[in-house]
Amino acid sequence: MAHIELNNDLPGIRGLMAYRPETEVHLNALAEFLLRNDDNTLTRGERELIGTYVSYLNDCFFCQNVHGAMAGHYLGCDINQIDGIKQDFNSADLSDKMKALLSIAGNVQKGGKYVTETQIEEARKNGATDVEIHDTVLIAAAFCMFNRYVDGLGTWAPQDRSFYINRAPQRALEGYQSSVYK
Amino acid sequence: MAHIELNNDLPGIRGLMAYRPETEVHLNALAEFLLRNDDNTLTRGERELIGTYVSYLNDCFFCQNVHGAMAGHYLGCDINQIDGIKQDFNSADLSDKMKALLSIAGNVQKGGKYVTETQIEEARKNGATDVEIHDTVLIAAAFCMFNRYVDGLGTWAPQDRSFYINRAPQRALEGYQSSVYK
Repeated sequence: MAHIELNNDLPGIRGLMAYRPETEVHLNALAEFLLRNDDNTLTRGERELIGTYVSYLNDCFFCQNVHGAMAGHYLGCDINQIDGIKQDFNSADLSDKMKALLSIAGNVQKGGKYVTETQIEEARKNGATDVEIHDTVLIAAAFCMFNRYVDGLGTWAPQDRSFYINRAPQRALEGYQSSVYK
Repeated sequence: MAHIELNNDLPGIRGLMAYRPETEVHLNALAEFLLRNDDNTLTRGERELIGTYVSYLNDCFFCQNVHGAMAGHYLGCDINQIDGIKQDFNSADLSDKMKALLSIAGNVQKGGKYVTETQIEEARKNGATDVEIHDTVLIAAAFCMFNRYVDGLGTWAPQDRSFYINRAPQRALEGYQSSVYK
């Protein structure tokens, strides 16, 4: 049960968003832009993967499963492959650019000052643009917010992981804006 | 120097927002609602104080000084009083409700799962509403994003703290939306 009375039985961030639609609109507009806007050289799958990895590091069950399922949907990976990436992205079948960006995201999760010049150089050396580095840092930072919001208010999450996988195609179609009302 | 080429010399988050106005609009809309919207039983000063405290815990010099100056402006405190609150809010001249909410914010900074039922009960016992608890958690979580964004991209910050204090009255007048362009 959540720490506050939400007056709904929606899981995770969806329960919070239905409780406080005044903040929902801004949070979903941010998620929509960061994760789905088409004018971005990082694919939707790559951006969802950054969010999934940070949610995994923050041990947020709801977020890592929602976004892990989205990443899997876009990248054509199953849940075991996504789990493998979360646990050891360096051994996964990912581009060197993506590995360098996930390394940056992992340090953002610890705290902004943990990001090093060496990590930035490694990302650049493997073809990452400044905008891609910017967006990686902001997506990682944003998930440090979303994860804390979801767990800081003690929301519940379906434990059956197929729940998230089954919802992903529809979410990919509809996007994040006002998703809570659907 | 920032980790990426911002093509401007604005400090902290302002440099990032000028670099990427497509994300600025969403971040400032969120900050504007969380910190300034008038339909809130937490005062602007109290909300700025939550952001200041979390920025202090995250060791983000720019954010703790911007928002510390804003909190001081609204609450009629000088910089030494704000520093005293950051270092030991329990000994400060604050309401028991505010102390309970700052305690929750401090645990959100560590990670969502650190928030305890006892902390929530303590806040309620001292008069905090569910919406106030919700907003405290979300403000604290949002600053975990803003702080990581500012430091994760290695932005610079004026070291003279009077810079922040002198800007606060104008910022209080203008708000956060599109503040970067002014």
